[in-house]
Amino acid sequence: MTELAPVLTQADANLDSSLEKLFDLCRIKSISTDPAFKADCRTAAEWLVSYLQSLGFEASVRDTPGHPMVVAHHAAGSEGAPHVLFYGHYDVQPVDPLNLWERDPFDPAIIERDGQRVIAGRGTSDDKGQLLTFVEACRAYKETHGALPVRVTILFEGEEESGSPSLKPFLEANAAELKADFALICDTSMWDAETPAISAGLRGLVGEEITIKAADRDLHSGYFGGAAANPIHILSDILAGLHDETGRVTLESFYDGVEETPSQIKASWETLGMSTEKFLGAIGLSVPSGEKGRSVLELTWARPTAEVNGIWGGYTGEGFKTVIAAEASAKVSFRLVGKQDPDRIRASFRAYVQSKLPADCRVEFHQHGGSPAIQLPYDSALLNRAKSALSDEWPKPAVMIGMGGSIPIAGDFQKMLGMEALLVGFALADDRIHSPNEKYNLTSFHKGIRSWIRIMAALAD
Amino acid sequence: MTELAPVLTQADANLDSSLEKLFDLCRIKSISTDPAFKADCRTAAEWLVSYLQSLGFEASVRDTPGHPMVVAHHAAGSEGAPHVLFYGHYDVQPVDPLNLWERDPFDPAIIERDGQRVIAGRGTSDDKGQLLTFVEACRAYKETHGALPVRVTILFEGEEESGSPSLKPFLEANAAELKADFALICDTSMWDAETPAISAGLRGLVGEEITIKAADRDLHSGYFGGAAANPIHILSDILAGLHDETGRVTLESFYDGVEETPSQIKASWETLGMSTEKFLGAIGLSVPSGEKGRSVLELTWARPTAEVNGIWGGYTGEGFKTVIAAEASAKVSFRLVGKQDPDRIRASFRAYVQSKLPADCRVEFHQHGGSPAIQLPYDSALLNRAKSALSDEWPKPAVMIGMGGSIPIAGDFQKMLGMEALLVGFALADDRIHSPNEKYNLTSFHKGIRSWIRIMAALAD
Repeated sequence: MTELAPVLTQADANLDSSLEKLFDLCRIKSISTDPAFKADCRTAAEWLVSYLQSLGFEASVRDTPGHPMVVAHHAAGSEGAPHVLFYGHYDVQPVDPLNLWERDPFDPAIIERDGQRVIAGRGTSDDKGQLLTFVEACRAYKETHGALPVRVTILFEGEEESGSPSLKPFLEANAAELKADFALICDTSMWDAETPAISAGLRGLVGEEITIKAADRDLHSGYFGGAAANPIHILSDILAGLHDETGRVTLESFYDGVEETPSQIKASWETLGMSTEKFLGAIGLSVPSGEKGRSVLELTWARPTAEVNGIWGGYTGEGFKTVIAAEASAKVSFRLVGKQDPDRIRASFRAYVQSKLPADCRVEFHQHGGSPAIQLPYDSALLNRAKSALSDEWPKPAVMIGMGGSIPIAGDFQKMLGMEALLVGFALADDRIHSPNEKYNLTSFHKGIRSWIRIMAALAD
Repeated sequence: MTELAPVLTQADANLDSSLEKLFDLCRIKSISTDPAFKADCRTAAEWLVSYLQSLGFEASVRDTPGHPMVVAHHAAGSEGAPHVLFYGHYDVQPVDPLNLWERDPFDPAIIERDGQRVIAGRGTSDDKGQLLTFVEACRAYKETHGALPVRVTILFEGEEESGSPSLKPFLEANAAELKADFALICDTSMWDAETPAISAGLRGLVGEEITIKAADRDLHSGYFGGAAANPIHILSDILAGLHDETGRVTLESFYDGVEETPSQIKASWETLGMSTEKFLGAIGLSVPSGEKGRSVLELTWARPTAEVNGIWGGYTGEGFKTVIAAEASAKVSFRLVGKQDPDRIRASFRAYVQSKLPADCRVEFHQHGGSPAIQLPYDSALLNRAKSALSDEWPKPAVMIGMGGSIPIAGDFQKMLGMEALLVGFALADDRIHSPNEKYNLTSFHKGIRSWIRIMAALAD
């Protein structure tokens, strides 16, 4: 067994230079969803390859039809050690509305916020800060012992925030190279600032964009109002009809494959001390909006949803324009749980939209990503070793939780490479990922690095 | 009585230079609803004053808190002639989406479209071309007889497309100066390209903008979806609930003051040969969307409506963003008929929105314009003289029709200055006013000028 304490000491000594590395990476505007930032995405991939090579990895930028992947390999220090695949993503969300940022999203810095030292900037939490916790853990091992306790393959993606279109073909084409004993994924949150969490359940996601088309031109609402179809009305009607009065999604067969969460798991969640007041109060709300009679943790971890993420149509500028628009659009997403089938959900949604369409109107569908939910067995050895390693590092013991967000890669690893995935991350609920003023706690970064050092050691035992 | 024939001949001879004047005016980007074009609105007002002065009018630009008014006066050639107030507006609608225009909206030109010679450009029909028909009629009189057959006061407004905020205060402050025997308003349409129309009924308008506010920030739909209120859902629900299954508006007391159209009037409309197929077919539609069991003419001329003119919220850019927006907005307008009270309709709408709001969400209302409907008596002498003059000019006799659009000024003249208003215009249903590729038929412009020459003569008799 490799000695642990000096590696942790080395990580502590490295902290300032680890932060410099994070700042360098966060300065690169790798917004994957916007074609204007295509070159920046490649720059981020190249930066990572170069850094991993400097740590002794055999690393390369791997082209895809979209943004490139980064793949890197490093042998284990001793024979028979397990082989892990570590996954993270170097792309980030768009930054609009820019005027709501306290500082330039691409000029990261350590600032004081709400009495904490945090690293402010787009991507500091999601997911550049998180992926570097693992890289910096590897670095500390190399600098201390000249070796890693486990064999490591790294896969960094550049399309996670835009539906990962290249991921499945890449996994398929490179399955032999990427297959390991299990995967480590760092793109999730802690329970709270003192309690690390392992995410055993993850919701899936289906994204759809619809455009309702009525008249062949924009119309004057005086001449045509009252007789001509208004696509905003049709769209509103479609969206309003997605939920019934109890908050359930109305799509046909939507709940096929959704199972009730076992009562002992619900009971363990109740010990976490989360309340509706706390959960919603943090974002200025108080009334749970989804299915009636379920806790906020169950609603966000274990129940499926339908959410409209964007809507637009007609005149949206200053003043008023009495127009009946020719078309109106919305972006709609579904969070999936259990065995809900993304393809069937998409088909059911499309059939529903068609059924609400007047005979003289049309709809265009545009497909965004789709991935099923995943659920790990709560009794796996992998989970329990990681739980114990995390509990050694943080003030409070680690908990196994559900996750509202979708990490499609976990399902892909399971389905395509036959690997279970361990989801451990150090983000916090108030990190404002996907929003203005994203941050990552300095403690998340520092103790995140130390956590991976401990987890690698635990896995090597 | 002034001799008519030489004036008509003079107007014919003037046509090319009349068109040059129209082009000059249409090149000025007087978009009143967008503050970026404030200076252009003043330029348009100054252009009109200068031109009217050159024709012998005593004309001036009159400041308001918004865009300026143009007021001009000219005496009648003979004692005892009636005094008319002519109204038009020099402001135009925004031009977005610009990419749908066949040519620069502010570079007017005569082009061939669908086998007709038309004047293409923003404002050519609504309302610069229309207001110039009257000015050019005056010019032909002056050039022929050195005098006008009636005493003329002109009022040109620059805020018609943005709710006319300055109009009422201006009428009030200048009532003595503006009061005439009756008003002439040129901002309406013909029945068809051969049949002139006098608009005896006009729908009113109430404009409202609402913003639904939920969480205090944009949220990640993974973390919060299923528990946190989504303002786009709330907004969709509100908008979808505005109509019941029969197409009626659901607001409380909405139909107070709405009377059924007398059967002899409905019968006269039936002789016009309009069908659902024709009316909706022209814009690529076939199914009437409003109240069931009423003709398209009744729906657009004599029934009130609720229409959403614009909607926006969340992520609307390329790609996908799994966000739950902090707020969502819509612009909503109501067309009024009969004695519907704009203030009560607005209050009823606001109460309805409040009633649909979850306890932890808020709404902000922004008031746009409001005006009641007006209805002229079908047997007035004014209407009948104009009808006969128009019938002399055009291939088919003039008809008295309803109007779907709102011309608030007609109600204001009635209420504030005690004047009936004669609404005659030469626009056509396919002029694409408020839309890309607006045009005005060359025939509308030319015979429009001749029509005013005839109407002025008829009024002077």
